[in-house]
Amino acid sequence: MKKLKIIIVGGTGTMGKHLTAALKKEHDIIIAANKSGDIQVDITSTVSIENMYKKVGAFDALISTAGPTYVGPWNTLTDKEFRQGVEGKMMGQINLVLIGQHYINPKGSFTLITGALSHDPQLNFANASAANCAVEGFVRAAAIELGNGIRINAVSPTVIESSPQYFPYFPGDIPVTMKQLEFGFRKSVFGANTGQIIIPY
Amino acid sequence: MKKLKIIIVGGTGTMGKHLTAALKKEHDIIIAANKSGDIQVDITSTVSIENMYKKVGAFDALISTAGPTYVGPWNTLTDKEFRQGVEGKMMGQINLVLIGQHYINPKGSFTLITGALSHDPQLNFANASAANCAVEGFVRAAAIELGNGIRINAVSPTVIESSPQYFPYFPGDIPVTMKQLEFGFRKSVFGANTGQIIIPY
Ligand SMILES: NC(=O)c1ccc[n+]([C@@H]2O[C@H](COP(=O)([O-])OP(=O)(O)OC[C@H]3O[C@@H](n4cnc5c(N)ncnc54)[C@H](OP(=O)(O)O)[C@@H]3O)[C@@H](O)[C@H]2O)c1
Ligand SMILES: NC(=O)c1ccc[n+]([C@@H]2O[C@H](COP(=O)([O-])OP(=O)(O)OC[C@H]3O[C@@H](n4cnc5c(N)ncnc54)[C@H](OP(=O)(O)O)[C@@H]3O)[C@@H](O)[C@H]2O)c1
Repeated sequence: MKKLKIIIVGGTGTMGKHLTAALKKEHDIIIAANKSGDIQVDITSTVSIENMYKKVGAFDALISTAGPTYVGPWNTLTDKEFRQGVEGKMMGQINLVLIGQHYINPKGSFTLITGALSHDPQLNFANASAANCAVEGFVRAAAIELGNGIRINAVSPTVIESSPQYFPYFPGDIPVTMKQLEFGFRKSVFGANTGQIIIPY
Repeated sequence: MKKLKIIIVGGTGTMGKHLTAALKKEHDIIIAANKSGDIQVDITSTVSIENMYKKVGAFDALISTAGPTYVGPWNTLTDKEFRQGVEGKMMGQINLVLIGQHYINPKGSFTLITGALSHDPQLNFANASAANCAVEGFVRAAAIELGNGIRINAVSPTVIESSPQYFPYFPGDIPVTMKQLEFGFRKSVFGANTGQIIIPY
C-alpha cells in the first residue's frame, strides 16, 4: 500500500489516539489538535484552519475526530449553548473541507466524525444530533461537488468502548469497539466510496 | 375539529400562501414573515422571535416555511456564504422551537420545513443539504425532550410544482403538488406523530 500523508485533527483525543497508533506504522501521521499535537489548530476559526493547511502543505487524507458539542439539559438549552456544536462539530468540520480542498492531493480523502445521535437521539444531546446530521448532509452534497477524484465520507459510531463515562447516556447501545471504529475509518481512507455515512457496527 | 390558533412563519411565501389559503377556513391563521404579513419576524434574530411570540401569545401550532439558504457554485463556497443557511433555515427554525416551547399550548405542535436535499443532494445546494439535515436531527432530538404533549415534525418535499424556476436544478424529480405538500403539513399538525420527517410524495 502506498504510504500516505494523513492529518488527524483531534489526534490527541480518545478516538484520535487510537487511530494514530493504528495508522502510524504504515503512514505519515500529522496530529493536529487545539492544545497539543504536532500542530495546533482551532477548528472554530477559519484563519486557524487555513494556517494549519499552509504549514502542512499538500496531503493525502484528512481524518477529523474533533467535534465539540454542548451536552446538557433541554430546559435550559438556548441559541447560546447550541452554538458550541454549530461552531465546533458542524462548521469546524465543514470548514476543514471547504478550505482543505484547496490543499489536498488529487484522489485524496476527507473523513469526518458524526455519530448515532443523528438518527437515534438521546436525552441531553440535541445539539450533537443537529451537528451530526448537518455534517452528514454536507458529506453527501460535497461528494458530488469535489473534483480531482477527491472523496469524502463520515464515520458514525454510537458510544465507543474507550468512553465509559458516556455509557449511562446511551442505554441499550452496545459500545463500539476501537477496532470497529478504526475499521470504519480505514474503509473511508483506503476504500473507494464517497458520500457515505459509514456505520462501523 | 377544534379551531386552532396557527402561526405560519413564511406565510407570505410560495408554500406559506398555499397553506394559509387551505387552513384559514377552519382555523385562526397568523401570518408571520420578514417584510409583510400579520406580524413581522426575522428568524435570524432570537430577539425578533421572542418579540413575535410575546405579541402572538399562546398558540396551538407553529408551521415554518421560512428557510433562507445559499444557492450557488461549490468552487466559491466558503464559511461566509454557508452562514446564510446556518443562520436562516437551520438556527432560525431551531430557535423558533427553543423559544416557542415557552409560549405554545399543551398538546401543541411545531412543523418545520426541510427538503429532499437532505438525502438526495443536487449541485449548488450543499448549504441547504446541511441545514435541512441539521433541522431533521434536531426534530428527532426535540421530540424526546418536549413536555406537555407538544409534538414536532418536519415536512421534506422535493421541488414543488409552484416553483418552476427550480425545476432545472432537480433533474428527474417529479414536482410535489401543492396538495401533497399541504397534506404533509396536515399530517403533522392534525395527526399524533412526533419526531417524524414527513415525505409528502
Ligand atoms: N467518545 C464517544 O463515545 C463518541 C461516540 C460517537 C461520536 N463521538 C464523537 O467523536 C468525536 C471525538 O470524540 P472523542 O471521544 O475522541 O473526543 P475527545 O477525547 O474529547 O477528543 C477531542 C479531540 O478534538 C480536539 N479538539 C476539540 N476541540 C477542538 C477545536 N476547537 N479545534 C481543534 N481540535 C479540537 C481535542 O484537542 P484538545 O484536547 O487539544 O482540545 C482532541 O484531540 C466527538 O465529536 C464526539 O461527539 C464520540
Ligand atoms: N420551493 C420549493 O420548490 C421547495 C422545495 C423543497 C423545500 N423548499 C424549502 O421550503 C422553504 C420555503 O420555500 P418557498 O418556495 O415557499 O420560499 P419563498 O417563496 O421564498 O418564501 C419564503 C418565506 O419565508 C419568509 N422569510 C424569509 N427569510 C425570513 C426571515 N429571515 N425571517 C422570517 N421570514 C423569512 C419570507 O418572507 P419575506 O418575503 O417577508 O422575506 C417568505 O414568507 C425554503 O426553506 C425552501 O428551501 C422549497
